[in-house]
Parts: sequence; structure tokens; C-alpha cells
Amino acid sequence: MSDDDGRERQSGSRKPLVLRGFRDYLPAQMILRQRITGIFQGIFERHGFEPLDTPALEYLSILTGKAGENEKLMYHFADQGGREVGLRYDLTVPLARVVAMHQNELVLPFKRYHIAPVWRAEKPQRGRFREFWQCDADVAGSASMLADADVVAIMAEALTAVGLPNFTILINHRRLLEGLALVAGVPEQEAGTIYRAVDKLAKIGRDGVARELREAGVPDDAIARVLDPVTMSGPPRDVLAELRPRLAGLPGAETAIAELEQLFALLPDFGVPPDRYRLDLALARGLDYYTGPVYEATVTEPNVGSVAGAGRYDALIGTFLGRPVPATGISLGLERIIEVVEEFGLLPVPVTVPQVFVALFPDTVGEGARLASRLRTEGLRVDLSLNPQRGLGDQLKYASRKGIPIAVIAGAAELAEAAAAVRDMRSGEQHTVALDELGGYIAELLAPGGTAQDATR
Amino acid sequence: MSDDDGRERQSGSRKPLVLRGFRDYLPAQMILRQRITGIFQGIFERHGFEPLDTPALEYLSILTGKAGENEKLMYHFADQGGREVGLRYDLTVPLARVVAMHQNELVLPFKRYHIAPVWRAEKPQRGRFREFWQCDADVAGSASMLADADVVAIMAEALTAVGLPNFTILINHRRLLEGLALVAGVPEQEAGTIYRAVDKLAKIGRDGVARELREAGVPDDAIARVLDPVTMSGPPRDVLAELRPRLAGLPGAETAIAELEQLFALLPDFGVPPDRYRLDLALARGLDYYTGPVYEATVTEPNVGSVAGAGRYDALIGTFLGRPVPATGISLGLERIIEVVEEFGLLPVPVTVPQVFVALFPDTVGEGARLASRLRTEGLRVDLSLNPQRGLGDQLKYASRKGIPIAVIAGAAELAEAAAAVRDMRSGEQHTVALDELGGYIAELLAPGGTAQDATR
Repeated sequence: MSDDDGRERQSGSRKPLVLRGFRDYLPAQMILRQRITGIFQGIFERHGFEPLDTPALEYLSILTGKAGENEKLMYHFADQGGREVGLRYDLTVPLARVVAMHQNELVLPFKRYHIAPVWRAEKPQRGRFREFWQCDADVAGSASMLADADVVAIMAEALTAVGLPNFTILINHRRLLEGLALVAGVPEQEAGTIYRAVDKLAKIGRDGVARELREAGVPDDAIARVLDPVTMSGPPRDVLAELRPRLAGLPGAETAIAELEQLFALLPDFGVPPDRYRLDLALARGLDYYTGPVYEATVTEPNVGSVAGAGRYDALIGTFLGRPVPATGISLGLERIIEVVEEFGLLPVPVTVPQVFVALFPDTVGEGARLASRLRTEGLRVDLSLNPQRGLGDQLKYASRKGIPIAVIAGAAELAEAAAAVRDMRSGEQHTVALDELGGYIAELLAPGGTAQDATR
Repeated sequence: MSDDDGRERQSGSRKPLVLRGFRDYLPAQMILRQRITGIFQGIFERHGFEPLDTPALEYLSILTGKAGENEKLMYHFADQGGREVGLRYDLTVPLARVVAMHQNELVLPFKRYHIAPVWRAEKPQRGRFREFWQCDADVAGSASMLADADVVAIMAEALTAVGLPNFTILINHRRLLEGLALVAGVPEQEAGTIYRAVDKLAKIGRDGVARELREAGVPDDAIARVLDPVTMSGPPRDVLAELRPRLAGLPGAETAIAELEQLFALLPDFGVPPDRYRLDLALARGLDYYTGPVYEATVTEPNVGSVAGAGRYDALIGTFLGRPVPATGISLGLERIIEVVEEFGLLPVPVTVPQVFVALFPDTVGEGARLASRLRTEGLRVDLSLNPQRGLGDQLKYASRKGIPIAVIAGAAELAEAAAAVRDMRSGEQHTVALDELGGYIAELLAPGGTAQDATR
């Protein structure tokens, strides 16, 4: 991050620039973002999840934990009072702090969603930003697989609702991988090597993973004992049944198998279509705090990669609270999802907020303003001209450049007859409509498939 | 800010704390916040304003300008790349940067709203936070008083829509105050002394202001020449007519009078009730970048003070762009408004998101989950029990503590008859309802004034 943008650093002037890895969202992008986050919020709420917000800045010690992990990737500094503070890195650690801090106000299990920006001082690259939004739904205070089934269902509904094609939710369990590493004879403290290598299976293939493990000093027979089960395929129930004898006697792995069996049994009752998820024994996921089932939604056609993920983390909240509070959740990758929705036009949204432009003439400014106010009280989004001294042509050009679909033209002549001209900017058609009928007429023009002809009564 | 919270600084542990001046918003607060920002967003959009978002972090030079003003009140630091960066202090400077930076993509006049947090390293006190949200609506690229009338109308509609009683929008013009200072013989560079003193008129009275000006070295006759007009009252038209001869020959003041006359003439056409605004020649407002009309909404009963404000700033964008871009706007003080709405219960909102709690029994978990899914597809917000192993009493206690209004109890006996028991948690009434009619039945219970009896068909 230090040498890639020295050029920017020179610009100490009032030159208008944004920091690399940060972005402005102009209206057309914001309209799409609001639409998508609105859809997610609706789904979270229909599942009974409640909104939470937390500060952008936290004590650095809260964000990093005792080991100071992730500190390198965090924006942190000493504030004016000498406190070490950081911009939040994710929304999960703040949730853990909230559950611990407000334990007397919150009823457990606590189902919350949080849609907000997070900051990471990573090297910016295509699709990776230093400021980006997360959309998380988590359940704190329940160890039940019902909670896991619920968040997987939310994930599937959310991705379906924005029109994402061909996504699959991969499901695995941390303790299964742990068990496989143990069975293979890999010491517990080296299990991380196994996870990291196995996680690349889809990318570099069985041979690639085997090579990486060999280079890390894992013996060939151990590699096979890990990779044979990991590359098994078939219905979850069958795969889990086949694994059970291989992992017998390992309590963690037995729990994992039992939990996954419960989870896979529940998903159909939660309305998740069977072609939307599968068991993937190679799925590891990065974060250290996962303790149980882990999830990742990927899109392979087009090759978009991971669009959402997460899993169960039964120990994190305990690091604040001193007693364990089991938790699970999912995080929708808003930026990646928006990219895909934009690229493939999955959600048609208007390019601009106003539906109606009201033109003004120097001699009827007050009447025009009153007309705009009236249309607003009828619920329409109305952009009133600010340039009555300009000609009508110029004013309509503004409306057209903005992409406003309807223009209302109320000159002295029309107003004398208690009417206004309504121009459909999309078709160019124009009709004179009585002021009393104006709102309804425009609403019909704006309705899907509405035309001036249909709307004339 | 440096010495008031040394106590916190000690806590380098994983103890769950938030920084002073920062807050968590728990669900009940978030529901109210979302309701209020949703109302504001709706009003902004009905006025044709479009959403914008900008980074939390900006180059410090962008935020402070050449003079480095406000730097003391800003959270700023050197990032990992050695860049001097700061957390945005308001939403107006980022707007100015956006207009300059994206001038080829934006159609002027650009009407935008921005609802987002800002950060100030001020000493926290009652009602003043280091992180708080602003709700701004601005028009860039228009010098017309139509733009000012529009943003004043937005301010009035927004405050009315959240039920704020007894607010008044005070209106003044920077160049009027300037003119008064000039006429009084105060040199231009000392005009700031006048503004700051006069702005306290409502708080410390005419005598207090006079004392302050005297202490600042302003001669007695000059004080009278400022305070006589400033304390005039009456309809704006009359006051402005009386001011005109006094300020004749001062081009700035003449423009100010003409602009205010236009503005006051337009406000009725924009639907602003006449008892909601008045000319207040003492209103100065703090920020240096105002150049024209300034606005401030205050509530005197209860004595809440300022809840919204802003004004015209025709020079700010030019500091980025090199050519002047006139602009005006308003900022709704979300935190103060929420405080008032909460304290006086102006907007009744539910205490929790879920409308329905679905209890579960160990032998009908799958059926219960399917029932919850079905109610969700009918648009209801449904919290499914995560504790089927607990008794029904415990599960209903959870629903009751959360404040969920309706509980659905579907045991094996009810399900065998394709029915479920529906309990209105508010009244305690319980009826058995066919599964096919469940969604509609609950919707009627939830409708205002709905009761089980009315709803039974």
C-alpha cells in the first residue's frame, strides 16, 4: 500500500481527488445500491432480524483482540486524546462487543442485521476497495442448527432476489477439516496449513493442493488421507455417512457430522431449493474465529467467485464476555453483488430520482411552483425548474439529459384554462390535461406499459 | 477533549467499551432512526433530490482548505501510505469536491441529498457527539432564489412530517449583516465580531450584545446603528422596505434585500405555511462559507434550540473548481430531532421488527419452519423460535420480552387439522385458525384497530 500511489501524495492542494480505494457513489449508482440494500433489509426483517448500528471508530484493542491480529490491515491512529483507535474492519467484532456490553438490554437469542461500511488498508485492486459495505445477518446466543439454517436461507433468498444466476452455497464444518487433519496425522498446530491448501482445491486442483502440502512437509500418505475424503462428491447425506466411520472416535468430527446432518435436513423446510447448496469438504474460509459450519456462496458462470459467506463462531463473543455465547451469521458481499447486478443488468432501476420535471415561465413562476407542490403531495417525485428565464427548449434539454420521463409545461395560456401540457419525454407525445387530473394522468403514464392514449379518459 | 476521559485510556483489554462521544444504536433506537431518515429521504426525493454518498476518509487538504480551518475539530492522521487523511467533518465540503471532480458526469443544477455520519473531535456533552448523522439537501449550480425556496420548503416539510411542534425557520442574509456592519462604521475585517455578538441576541438580549460589542471596541453610536435595525420586527416585506433606504448604496445589501424579497414572495407558492418562518436580522450562523440567505429552524417550546440550518454558499465549490458554482442547501440535525421525537413520543414506532413469533415443538420442527417460511412469503416479518426443546411457556416469554405482538403455536394436534393457534400477545386472546387463512388473519390482527373478533370470518 505504501508505494502504489505516491503520485497522489504530491497533491496537497485543493485539487478535487479521492483517496485510492475509496469511491464516490453518484446518483445512478446510489439508486441501484439503495435498491439492493433495500431488498436485503426487507429479507433480513422478514426473518425477524433487527437493525443495529455501531461506531465507525472503536478502541483498537477491541478490534484487534489480544494478539493484535489484522492490525496491519486496519486504519488506526492515536486520536486527539491519545487513545489508540481504529476504523472498524468488519461488523462481526462490533456485534460481539455489543452483545457483551448491552447484555442486560438485549434478549437472547439476538438476531440482528447491520448494513454499513468497513475499512481495510489493503492494496486496492479491481473489485477490492479500502472502504466497502457489508450486509450482515447474525444470530447471537443460539447453538441450534435452526439458526444456521435460517441464515443460509437468508443468503439464498437475498441472492435470488437480486437476480443472481447460478449461485451455489458451499457448506462445510470447521471441525470436519480439523478431524481430517488429525486422522491424517497432521499435528493440531499445523492444521492451518491443511485448511489453507485444501481451500484452493477448486482453483489449483487435487495435484496442486497435494504439491503444496508436500512442500509444507506433509507426508504423502497423510496427503491422501486428507484429499480422498475431501474430493468425495454426492448427496450430503451419503458423503457424511461415508465419513462417519473414518472419523469415528474424534468428538469434534462426530459433532460436526451430526450438526451438518441436522442442517441439511432443515434447509428444505426453510425453503432453500436443493440445487442452491451443497456440501464441499474443501471449503475452509479464512477467518480464525469460525468454530462450526462455514458457508460460502459462489457464482461460477459468469466466473464471479465468492459473493457471500460466513459461518458459526461460538468463541468470539466470549472473548469480551468471559462466558461462551454461541453465534452464527452470514455476510453478503455487497460490492461484488452490485458489480454483477450492474454488469448483467439484473435489476432494472431508474437512472434518476425525479419522475416529473415542471418547466417554468417568467410570468407564471408562482403557479408552476404551486403545481409542483401539489404533484408532490400526490406522491410524485418532482423536479421543479430553477431556470424560468431560460427558454422552454433549454429547460426540456435539462430534463432529457437527466433522464426524467415526464415534463409538465404550464404556460399562461394553459393555466388560463386550468390545464397543463404533459410531455412524455420517452415518446415525445404531448397532451393537454386538466390540472385536477394531472397527478392521476402522470401516475398512469408512469405505470408499467402506461401510454398517453391509455391514460386519457 | 484531552483530559476528560483519561479513565478510558487505561482500558487496553478486551473490555467491551465504546469511545466517549460514540454510540451503539440498539434495535429500538434504530427502528426510530430508520423511520425518521426514511421520512426525510421520501421528502428529499419528492422534491427531485438525488442520493449521493462519498468516502468517510478524504485527503486532509480537501477537508480543511488552504487555511487549515477546523483542523483542530477533525479526526485526522497519516495513513499507512503516509498520506494526511481525515474523517469527513460535514457533508458540504465533500459535495463541493464531488461537483468539481465529476463536473462532466453531473447535470447542473445538481440537487442531491446525503444522509450519513460525520465525525468531530469535539468535547462530548449532552446532545453533542463525536460521531453523528447529518441529513443534507443541497442544490449546486443555481443562484436562483427558487433553489432557496425549495430547500426551505423541504426543511419545513421534514420537521412537520416527524411531528415537531412549534418550530420556526429564521431567515436572514449574510450581506444584510455585512451592510449593517459597514453602515455602523465597523471595518470589513472586523465584521465577524458583529456577527458573533448579534447571533446571541435571543440568548443574551440587546443589552448583552451591546456590552459585548462595547468590550470589543465598537463605539456606542455604531452599536446603535447595528442593533436598531436588527431588533426590528414585523412582516418581512415591511422590515425589508424600511431597511432599504438605510442600506442604500451598498451593492451587497441591496442584492440581499432583493433576494430576500424574492424568497419571501416564493415561500407561499412552495407550500410553506406563513407561521413557520420569519425574517430574523440577528441570525448569523457560524460557518464562514455562507454568502447569501441563511436559515435556521428552532423550537422554543420545549426549549430545544436549533434543529436544522444552513444557507447559501456561492464560493465554496469554486475553491475546488476555479470558477464559481453557486449553491444552497439545508442540513437537518438528525440527532437533535430524534431526541425531541423520542422525548415527546411524536412518532409511535414498534419496539421490535418481528410481527409474528412462531413457536416450535421437538416433534414438529420442520412443519413449524415451513409455516414461518410461508408467512414470510406473504410479507410478514417472522421470528422463528430457536428453542424447540424449551417449553412453550419459555418460548412465549421470549416473544413477550421482545414485544412481538402475535405468536403462532403449531403443535402436532393443530397441524393434524391443518390449523394453528394464533395468540394476540397484547390482549392474550387466542384462536385456532386454518393454515390457509393464517397470513390474512394475522395481517388483520396487525392492522390498526384490528382484533381477533373482527378478523374472524
